Amino acid sequence: MRLLIKKSICVLLVSILFGACYAGPKSKEWNDKQAMVKAMEWQEQHPIFALAPTDWTNGVYYKGVSEAFRATNDQRYLAALKTMGYRNDWKPLHRTHHADDISISYSYLFISTTRRNLVDLKPTKDWLDKHLMEANEWNGIGGESKMPTLWWWCDALFMAPPVIAYYAELTGEKKYLDAMHKYYKETYDLLFDQEEKLFARDLRYVWKGNEKDIKEENGQKVFWSRGNGWVIGGLALILEHLPADYEHRSYYEDLLKTMAARLKEIQHEDGLWRTSLLSPESYNHGEVSGSGLYTFAIAWGINNGLLDKNEYEPVVIKAWEALRTCQNDEGMVGWVQNIGDSPKPADAGSWQNYGTGAFLLAGSEMLKLQDNK
Amino acid sequence: MRLLIKKSICVLLVSILFGACYAGPKSKEWNDKQAMVKAMEWQEQHPIFALAPTDWTNGVYYKGVSEAFRATNDQRYLAALKTMGYRNDWKPLHRTHHADDISISYSYLFISTTRRNLVDLKPTKDWLDKHLMEANEWNGIGGESKMPTLWWWCDALFMAPPVIAYYAELTGEKKYLDAMHKYYKETYDLLFDQEEKLFARDLRYVWKGNEKDIKEENGQKVFWSRGNGWVIGGLALILEHLPADYEHRSYYEDLLKTMAARLKEIQHEDGLWRTSLLSPESYNHGEVSGSGLYTFAIAWGINNGLLDKNEYEPVVIKAWEALRTCQNDEGMVGWVQNIGDSPKPADAGSWQNYGTGAFLLAGSEMLKLQDNK
Amino acid sequence: MRLLIKKSICVLLVSILFGACYAGPKSKEWNDKQAMVKAMEWQEQHPIFALAPTDWTNGVYYKGVSEAFRATNDQRYLAALKTMGYRNDWKPLHRTHHADDISISYSYLFISTTRRNLVDLKPTKDWLDKHLMEANEWNGIGGESKMPTLWWWCDALFMAPPVIAYYAELTGEKKYLDAMHKYYKETYDLLFDQEEKLFARDLRYVWKGNEKDIKEENGQKVFWSRGNGWVIGGLALILEHLPADYEHRSYYEDLLKTMAARLKEIQHEDGLWRTSLLSPESYNHGEVSGSGLYTFAIAWGINNGLLDKNEYEPVVIKAWEALRTCQNDEGMVGWVQNIGDSPKPADAGSWQNYGTGAFLLAGSEMLKLQDNK
Repeated sequence: MRLLIKKSICVLLVSILFGACYAGPKSKEWNDKQAMVKAMEWQEQHPIFALAPTDWTNGVYYKGVSEAFRATNDQRYLAALKTMGYRNDWKPLHRTHHADDISISYSYLFISTTRRNLVDLKPTKDWLDKHLMEANEWNGIGGESKMPTLWWWCDALFMAPPVIAYYAELTGEKKYLDAMHKYYKETYDLLFDQEEKLFARDLRYVWKGNEKDIKEENGQKVFWSRGNGWVIGGLALILEHLPADYEHRSYYEDLLKTMAARLKEIQHEDGLWRTSLLSPESYNHGEVSGSGLYTFAIAWGINNGLLDKNEYEPVVIKAWEALRTCQNDEGMVGWVQNIGDSPKPADAGSWQNYGTGAFLLAGSEMLKLQDNK
Repeated sequence: MRLLIKKSICVLLVSILFGACYAGPKSKEWNDKQAMVKAMEWQEQHPIFALAPTDWTNGVYYKGVSEAFRATNDQRYLAALKTMGYRNDWKPLHRTHHADDISISYSYLFISTTRRNLVDLKPTKDWLDKHLMEANEWNGIGGESKMPTLWWWCDALFMAPPVIAYYAELTGEKKYLDAMHKYYKETYDLLFDQEEKLFARDLRYVWKGNEKDIKEENGQKVFWSRGNGWVIGGLALILEHLPADYEHRSYYEDLLKTMAARLKEIQHEDGLWRTSLLSPESYNHGEVSGSGLYTFAIAWGINNGLLDKNEYEPVVIKAWEALRTCQNDEGMVGWVQNIGDSPKPADAGSWQNYGTGAFLLAGSEMLKLQDNK
Repeated sequence: MRLLIKKSICVLLVSILFGACYAGPKSKEWNDKQAMVKAMEWQEQHPIFALAPTDWTNGVYYKGVSEAFRATNDQRYLAALKTMGYRNDWKPLHRTHHADDISISYSYLFISTTRRNLVDLKPTKDWLDKHLMEANEWNGIGGESKMPTLWWWCDALFMAPPVIAYYAELTGEKKYLDAMHKYYKETYDLLFDQEEKLFARDLRYVWKGNEKDIKEENGQKVFWSRGNGWVIGGLALILEHLPADYEHRSYYEDLLKTMAARLKEIQHEDGLWRTSLLSPESYNHGEVSGSGLYTFAIAWGINNGLLDKNEYEPVVIKAWEALRTCQNDEGMVGWVQNIGDSPKPADAGSWQNYGTGAFLLAGSEMLKLQDNK
C-alpha cells in the first residue's frame, strides 16, 4: 500500500516539479509589477543596438522604462535610466533631419526631472533646433525637401513629437509646440485614412485609386499594427505633456479617441491585434509591439478621462492579460515583430527592446488603472 | 483513501513548493560565500550612478568587491573589478577638493597588486597631490578655505584616508601618511563626541549648548549610523595598510577600539543598529549600510588582535546573521538607507551599491573569522 | 497511518526538492541549444578583460558567439556581438606585430555579413596591412625580427590566420592568403613534431636532443592541450573561409586530418583530453578549452567531409557529452585552464571567456552534426 502511494506521489511530484516549479516561479505567477521589472531586467541583460545605443529602438524602450518608474517608483528603473544616459553622454543620435534619432531624449528629459544638474539637455535642444527651426534635408525650410514632409512615415509621430511636447513643457517655450503641430498636421493630412480611421505607414500604402494600389490578399488596404501603435502611443505621450490650455489640444485628443474607437472594433477575441489590422488572417497571431502600444494609449485615455471606462476597460484588461502570456519565464517578452515597415509575422522567440518598451508602457497605465479602482 | 491522501499531499506540496522551492534556493540556504557572490552579481546587473561610475557610491561598493576577492579568491570579483577599472580609464572623479571623488581609487590600488602594468595609477597620484599638497577650495593651504577643514563631514574619513594609506603602502612615500594624519585629527577634533564616543556627521550636529542644538525627540544627540560606519569602517581599512611601525598607528587603533566598545553597547538585540544610534525608536528597524560597516570593522579588529574575541565575536555573529536576512532570494541586499546625511528610514526594497559594498566588507571579515577558528 | 505516509513523503520531497528542483532546471536538463545560450548569457554577465575588451580572450569568446549565431540564428547571440563591436568602435587591440590583437576582428567580419554599413572594417584592414605587409618587430620584413618568426608560438595560429582567411574571402584579395600561408608554414616548420603529430607550444618545448630538453615526469615531450586546440581549431576556421580552389587548401586539410587522427588516439575514456596530452597523469582531469577546440575541429571535419563520420562521430559525441557536464546550473562553463603557456590544472570553478568560446564552438558544430542526421 505504501509503495503504491509513493508511486502515485512520484508521478504527481514529477508533473508538478517539472510543471509549475521546474524553472522557478512561472511568469504567470508574477504580479504585474514583478512581470514589468523582470522584463526590464531581462532587457538590460540583453542590450541590442540596431544602430547605436541611442537609436530609436532604445528610445522606445527607455520611454517604457521612464513610464514604468513613474508608475512604480521602483529604483531599478531609475538606475537603468541614469546609467544609460550617462553612458550616452546625454546625446541623441546624429541625424538631425530624422525623427528616429531624437526618440532617446524623452528619457533624458524624464531623468532631468528626478535630479537637478545631472542631465545635460543642451544636445537635445541643439538637435531639436536643427530639426524644426533650421533647414535640413527633410523639413522643407528654405523650400527644398527630399521627402513629402518632415515626418513622412507614421512611426515618426512616436519618435519626435512626444520629445518636443516634453521639452516645451519643461522649458515653457511654446514655439516648439507650434512647430510640432505644423508638421504633425502635414503627416496626418498625408497618411490618415478618413474612412478606415487608421494611418497608412507611408505614401506607398495610400491608395490613389489605380492598379498600383497595394492590397492585402483579401482586398483590404494595408494598415500596419505597429505603425498605428506608433501614432496612438505617441498621442498619449504628447497629451501627457501638452498644456491643458494649448490651443490645439483637442486636435490630439480627438485623434486619440477616433483611433481608439476603431481599434476597439478590430481587436481580436484573444485580446491581441494582428500585424495587418484589416487582414488578420495574413499572420493570424497576436503581436506585442502594436498591441502593447494600443493598450498603453487606450488605458491612458481611460485614466485621463478621454475614454469611457465602462466601454474601454474590458478592451485593455483583455489585451494586457494576453500581453502577459507573451512573456516567458525568464522575463523575455516575445511575439514582437522584427524591425520593418509593414506587416510581417512574429513568434514566441522574437524579441526586441522596443517590444519590451511597449510592454512596459502598457503595464504602467494598467497599474494606474488598477490604482484608480 | 488514496484520494484523501492525495489531497493532503497536494496541500503539503503547494505549501512547500511555494515556500522553500518556489523561486529556486532561498537566500537563507546559501552559504556565506554564495550569498556574497550573489550580492555582487545582482549589483553588477544593476549598475547605479549617483553622479558617475567613479562616484563615492561605486567607490564604497568596489572596496567591498576588492575585500571579497581578497577573502575568497573567487575570480568573479576580480573580473568585475578589472572591467570597471578599464571602463573608468583608472580615473577618480574630478573634484580634487572633495574626498568622495577618490574613493574609487582604493579598488584601482588593489587591482594593481594583482597584475603588473595593468593599472594606471598616475591619475590617482595627481588627484592625491592636488587634494593634500596643493591649495584647493577646502584644504586651507594658502590660508583660505570655504570649510572648517578639508574633511569637514565624517563620511570623508572613509572616502579618502584608506586610499591615502594604501597609496603610501604601495609607494613607500610617507609624506602622504603625514598629510592624512594632519587632516584626520582636524576632523576628529571637530566631530568626535568625547562623552558619547561617536562622531557627529558634521558641525550642524555638534552641540554648542544653546537652543539651536539639534536633538532627537527623546532629547538625545543625533548620531547617524552610517556616518559612524564610515569612520570605523575607514579605520579598519586604514589600519590594513598602515605600517606596523607608523608613529601614529596607535591613535587609529585606539579610536577603533573606543568606537567598537560603544557600538557594542548600543547594538539592538536583533543584531542590527538603527539609523539614529541613540534614538532607535525613531526608525525602529535594522539598517544595512551602517550595520555592515560596523560588522566589518569589529570583525577586522578581532581578526587582527585589536579586539577580544570572546567579547566581540557574539556581536558580529549576531549582526552578520541579521545582515544575511536582509538579502532577498535574487541576491539583492535591501534595508539600505538612501543617500543622505542624517538618520532616515529604509525598507526591504531600498538597495544601494554602497549597501552591497558594506555587506561584502562584512562578509569578507566574517569569512576570515570563520577560517581562524 | 496518514502521519506515517506524510513523513515518508516529506523525506521524498526534501530529497527531490534539494536534488532535481533545488536550483531550477539543472544544466543536464537543458538541450544543447539551451546550454549554449545559457553559457553565453552567463559570460555576458561576467565580462572579463585580461588586457582590454578587444584582447585575445574576448577574440576567442566572440568567435564562439559568432559560430553559435550561425548555427542557431538565435538573436541573443547577434545582439551580444553587435553591442560588443559597437562599444569597441570596431577596433582590434593595438599591437600590430602581435597575432593576439587581431583575434577579435573575426567577429567584426562576421557581423559585417549580417548588415550592410554597420561595421567599420578599416581598422581591421589597417592592422592586417601592418602585420603582414609592413615591417614590424616580429615579421622579419626588412630583415630584422626579435623572434624566430611572426607567429612564433602555436596559439598565434588561432588568433590571426582565421581572420586573414575571412578577410580575404570577404574582399577577394588573395595577397592576404599568400602572406598567411608563408607565415603559417614557418610556424609549422618550427613547432610541428613529425613523430608525435602535435605542436610544441613554442621553441622552448622543441627537443634539441640534449640535457636541456624539457620533459614531463614520465619522460614524454610536453604537448599542451590548449596549444594544440588553438592549431586544430584555427584550421577549421581557416578552412571555413578558404576558397575551394585555393592552391594550398590541401595543406590545411591534411594537417587537420593528421592532428585529428592523433587526438583520437589520445582521447581519455571519459571523453576529455588532459592538459598535458602525453602525460595525462600530471593533472588527471578533463580540461574544457583544449577539449572544446578539438570537439569543434573534429566535428567540423566530419560535417565538411574531411573526416569519416563512422570513425569520428563517437569521439565528438563522447567529448561533447563530457563538456556539457562541465557547465554548472547557472550556465558557467568550468574546468578551464587559466591563462598560460603550458599544461596546468583546472577545476570546477575555473572559468574563462575563451573556455566559454571553445564550448560554443564545439556546440555549434555538434548542432550541425545532429542536423545532418
